[in-house]
Amino acid sequence: MKKRVFSGIRPTGRIHLGNYLGAVQNYVAMQDEFECVYCVVDIHALTTLEDTHLLQENIREQVIDLLAAGLDPSKCTLFVQSHVPEVTELFTLLGMATPLSWLLRVPTFKEKVKQQPQNVNYGLVGYPVLMTADIVLYKAEVVPVGEDQLPHLELAREIVRRFNDIFGETFPEPKGRLTSVPMVVGLDGRDKMSKSLNNHIELAATPEETMKKVMSAVTDPARMRRADPGHPEVCNIYKLHKTFTPSAVDEIAQGCRTASRGCVECKKELGNAINEYLAPLRARRAEIAKDQAYLDRVIKEGAEKARAIAKVTMVEVKRRMGLL
Amino acid sequence: MKKRVFSGIRPTGRIHLGNYLGAVQNYVAMQDEFECVYCVVDIHALTTLEDTHLLQENIREQVIDLLAAGLDPSKCTLFVQSHVPEVTELFTLLGMATPLSWLLRVPTFKEKVKQQPQNVNYGLVGYPVLMTADIVLYKAEVVPVGEDQLPHLELAREIVRRFNDIFGETFPEPKGRLTSVPMVVGLDGRDKMSKSLNNHIELAATPEETMKKVMSAVTDPARMRRADPGHPEVCNIYKLHKTFTPSAVDEIAQGCRTASRGCVECKKELGNAINEYLAPLRARRAEIAKDQAYLDRVIKEGAEKARAIAKVTMVEVKRRMGLL
Repeated sequence: MKKRVFSGIRPTGRIHLGNYLGAVQNYVAMQDEFECVYCVVDIHALTTLEDTHLLQENIREQVIDLLAAGLDPSKCTLFVQSHVPEVTELFTLLGMATPLSWLLRVPTFKEKVKQQPQNVNYGLVGYPVLMTADIVLYKAEVVPVGEDQLPHLELAREIVRRFNDIFGETFPEPKGRLTSVPMVVGLDGRDKMSKSLNNHIELAATPEETMKKVMSAVTDPARMRRADPGHPEVCNIYKLHKTFTPSAVDEIAQGCRTASRGCVECKKELGNAINEYLAPLRARRAEIAKDQAYLDRVIKEGAEKARAIAKVTMVEVKRRMGLL
Repeated sequence: MKKRVFSGIRPTGRIHLGNYLGAVQNYVAMQDEFECVYCVVDIHALTTLEDTHLLQENIREQVIDLLAAGLDPSKCTLFVQSHVPEVTELFTLLGMATPLSWLLRVPTFKEKVKQQPQNVNYGLVGYPVLMTADIVLYKAEVVPVGEDQLPHLELAREIVRRFNDIFGETFPEPKGRLTSVPMVVGLDGRDKMSKSLNNHIELAATPEETMKKVMSAVTDPARMRRADPGHPEVCNIYKLHKTFTPSAVDEIAQGCRTASRGCVECKKELGNAINEYLAPLRARRAEIAKDQAYLDRVIKEGAEKARAIAKVTMVEVKRRMGLL
């Protein structure tokens, strides 16, 4: 029997290459090995979002990308968090078993307090409780995490242990599955690829937009002139070639070091490779985007599948807590 | 059009004379003037309750008493909080608009921290948010409050104002309705009547139990012997006579002051008066307690009525917040 995986996905809108290589590819790969529950966490988004008028559009665009990237609704459960309101019930109830002190000492909470001192709301401090509710509502045993998220998962495990202690064995303690997620650097060659820095390439970009973005990318800053030898090991374009032109990386490195290949040519090749790589995905994307009724159905049926599990869990939780 | 009233009732089990005279009589009286929504707040109980195995029995016993006391399901909406899970959705969402600092400075929260330092949980600090969700889920305009609860209501009004500011005018600001709630002193003549002090008389007590409890009550402590003159103004038995033997209070006071009436006799009269007063209520209680199917139906239909209102509110709230 396959173990159940849960992962929450922030509704940030269209997926870019960084998201895709860093996380989404992994989601797709896990579908066969696990029973995957993937949740677009719109309620979580509200803890930090003050302007929500793009939320619906972002959710839809993201789901289209996820499907185009290979999430298969017949294999996994893909749904939107707020469409399964049981999660807020469980959040409320888990809150009765979660010491406030545990939440106040979470490093990411302290960071957020610095980042948005004007908006330290009750929901923000409860973020790990809602995250725990997300996971245990489906009694997920496995949660894919990056190294940086391990403290959150440990807190989730502590909440589960405490709940089980007080009300009796109810939830499995979710285990983290460390995924070697490559950090994809953006086109500025410096920061992690991200929408807010505009150093990204969206899966949904046109080939022309993609090429334009790649052509504007920063390469080895020490290579000032065409004739200067380059240093592929510090060049982000070279790094991306490793993913998109794997068969030719040695040749590319060699050409760069000997200055027999120029950056313009090198970027053009990368742009072409990315466009070629994304072509089938973009074709699927266009198909899905045209069929909004299909998209509606996928979102609706995902929620129904998730809710069927959630309802069973909530009956058990309420019995344990004396509410039934 | 009648204004909507909301009041939450803690599921403490069987109702005693203190609850009845202090609050329940008022609930009954309000049914004609207002559209009343009365909620047995089982989720709230979990913020401080560690042992919940009596919760279901307490809820049922309390609902029986409320019905026996005169709450009429055809006039008011009487239901159990957790049966309308929309309240936890609204609680979660209101939490995004409630500064943590507002909650940490609530005096009753600070008191609880002293009372139960081992159990300062996330749910406890969110108590006022859940209370606000209770009220505004039904867009109640009026909340009956005692003087001591005014700060809670003010906080609810602040949360509503902030939500309306951020997401647009959604909820009316609930107004407090100060009810001159008589503080009923217990049979110890000292503390407020309460179950935990065992200085109470349950509505459901038998006439014999009632008489026994009254006969054990403390009277004027300065009146040591039968021949000593008493001081009715300091005697709790006299106070209770005012409620249960209103036509004879002058005579009773006079007899006490002149020592022509003894405490034993005076208490016996009170016991009889209470039993007479409660007789019709106890008869109704016995009827309802025999008919568990009726009780189930009342509780179920109450939740359905409440939920119909709640669903409409939640669609509006979700639209406002970008979740729909």
